[in-house]
Amino acid sequence: MTAPLAGITILDMTHVLAGPYCTMTLADLGAEVIKVEQPVTGDDTRAFPPFKDGKSAYFATINHGKKSIALNLKDADDRAIFERLVARADVLVENYRPGVMERLGYGWDALHEVFPRLVYGAVSGFGHTGPDAKRPAYDMVVQARGGVMSITGEKDRDPVRVGASIGDIVAGMFLAQGILAALFDRDRLGKGRKIDVSMLDSQLALLEHAVAMTSVNGVAPGPSGARHPSITPFETFHAADGLFVIAAGNDRLFEKLCLAMELPLADDPRFATNPARCENARLLKRLIEAVTLGDTRAFWIAKLTAAGIPTGPIQNVGEVLKDPQIQARNMVVDVLDRNGRAAYTAAGNPIKMTDNPDPSTRRPAPDLDGNRGEILRWLDDS
Amino acid sequence: MTAPLAGITILDMTHVLAGPYCTMTLADLGAEVIKVEQPVTGDDTRAFPPFKDGKSAYFATINHGKKSIALNLKDADDRAIFERLVARADVLVENYRPGVMERLGYGWDALHEVFPRLVYGAVSGFGHTGPDAKRPAYDMVVQARGGVMSITGEKDRDPVRVGASIGDIVAGMFLAQGILAALFDRDRLGKGRKIDVSMLDSQLALLEHAVAMTSVNGVAPGPSGARHPSITPFETFHAADGLFVIAAGNDRLFEKLCLAMELPLADDPRFATNPARCENARLLKRLIEAVTLGDTRAFWIAKLTAAGIPTGPIQNVGEVLKDPQIQARNMVVDVLDRNGRAAYTAAGNPIKMTDNPDPSTRRPAPDLDGNRGEILRWLDDS
Repeated sequence: MTAPLAGITILDMTHVLAGPYCTMTLADLGAEVIKVEQPVTGDDTRAFPPFKDGKSAYFATINHGKKSIALNLKDADDRAIFERLVARADVLVENYRPGVMERLGYGWDALHEVFPRLVYGAVSGFGHTGPDAKRPAYDMVVQARGGVMSITGEKDRDPVRVGASIGDIVAGMFLAQGILAALFDRDRLGKGRKIDVSMLDSQLALLEHAVAMTSVNGVAPGPSGARHPSITPFETFHAADGLFVIAAGNDRLFEKLCLAMELPLADDPRFATNPARCENARLLKRLIEAVTLGDTRAFWIAKLTAAGIPTGPIQNVGEVLKDPQIQARNMVVDVLDRNGRAAYTAAGNPIKMTDNPDPSTRRPAPDLDGNRGEILRWLDDS
Repeated sequence: MTAPLAGITILDMTHVLAGPYCTMTLADLGAEVIKVEQPVTGDDTRAFPPFKDGKSAYFATINHGKKSIALNLKDADDRAIFERLVARADVLVENYRPGVMERLGYGWDALHEVFPRLVYGAVSGFGHTGPDAKRPAYDMVVQARGGVMSITGEKDRDPVRVGASIGDIVAGMFLAQGILAALFDRDRLGKGRKIDVSMLDSQLALLEHAVAMTSVNGVAPGPSGARHPSITPFETFHAADGLFVIAAGNDRLFEKLCLAMELPLADDPRFATNPARCENARLLKRLIEAVTLGDTRAFWIAKLTAAGIPTGPIQNVGEVLKDPQIQARNMVVDVLDRNGRAAYTAAGNPIKMTDNPDPSTRRPAPDLDGNRGEILRWLDDS
């Protein structure tokens, strides 16, 4: 077993979510992550609820297995330590507001000159260029401005936020992808690269379908409610005891669905093709729901699954954590505390890969400055 | 300018969204992508609306710059071509139902034996292991079963789907990350790896906060509506003429907000800390909205931005495409047609990187089997 990023050291100057999420996924691929935090307070999320045993479960589940050193980058001694760390690192990741690293003397240009092989990954609200580069942003600002909220929610009601923090997380994922590509090519290029990911850009990158609709039709789509805007049927239905989803993404699946439900609609010209079904989506939903209301959700999921039709329940997060498929995939892991006890529950690594360890536990998240001695000794060992 | 993946060839056996999105992001990093499609129909999305000039804009905007060859993998001659392609490829990507590649004789085990350096990336609804491995899935099935829908929408109403297809896209992004990590380590390990990404797993990986809340409190969170569940104020507010977002993620920002709005709340014990603000979120929203309703959205966004507070409008996709920041970042690109004319609008590459070209146009998406001759000549050139 060799993790693909074994031996790679990441200097992690990030806080809150986009940056820490990025370095978490790289740690799951084997990288060593050294978190450089502000003295006294450290990462903001150390103060975010929920708390368990006096510590933030939020912080613990995103920063597991990382090391921490607190450095005051306006202090000469700490700057010297920082520069020794940069010299040993393969990658520096930061999610400060653009300009902050430059004011510290550690912007890309300055670092690249001294450490040409360093890969420099930055994620920020709006990116390092453009008129709004220096504006602050959080997840919800980019979900709103980036268009995702405008297509999420119910028709004729206010838009809603995506419950998951995709404004941060998706940007962190794009940054991880850029960092890996730069590492891959570092030897051939003979130098590192700067990667500059914007949370706002990343939101637009999620809108493949909505961009196509807007540019072809000249009209921006509204909130899609609980259905796909251009595939039918692909939405929620009420059974006698609750909601479930049927996603019949092509004609063949629609025929199978009609057969399984004993609905004589597959040859009906109103429903024979996906464009026709989209035209008559509301009528089709009523016809299908008239049948699904006659039995339980479990009945329909079993019956439609047996017929090969994509279907499933709407589950809350508690149900998801117990889902047999999720369990079988080792997707719920325990973050340990200092005493080796399971202390926090976290999502596992979704990138399952041969020869990469996939343990069912994670090492603890660090205390603020908790690895200072060890890190200084490692620097002296070089 | 050298794209980091220049010289890398990807054999793309994917269709619809998760797989094609993955290979699109790798193409934007410089990889050559050869799409192997079913004869006659090709990728399902060739038939997905909206259409322009008789072609699917949906297909065009996700498959730009790829090449296409149609191969019947049950035909001996086409199988011989396929095997020559695999021999030349660095990466094979597929999003068939688990078992399909094995039945064709091209599962990971078989290919790995003959082509040990090949990186094999698979994305599927539920992954290649576990009790539900062989079930079919589409985006909405995993949004529902994976928990994201349960936290998206309004309290006391049915959950809604995230308007963007994050069930597919996020899985495609994790797969791209795994492929890049495997490529990075290929020489050191001396062999390729299989990456097995599940759309369901990927949904859980987005729920950092909800997982922490569920495991610490023992209660799964409900739909978050238009606010962050554990940061306050971090939500939508009505101005006189429309909705906008204020995201004051810490005490310092909340103080600035109170100052800018002339609201004497920063020292009020009900609002002095984030936990207190979360407790009294509804009251705080009423107090803030009583002020914001007194002026326009543009007024408040300008005023709060000047005060350094993260804020912004809710924009529809048409507004996003014209957003000056999005434009300045080259995030709206034109996909060309065969005659070199701008034919389709697509999202640009969110991974901005030094030395990687970031053109404002994209080469056309291929016609089905449109590059057969060129691909066969390339194979003969080896």
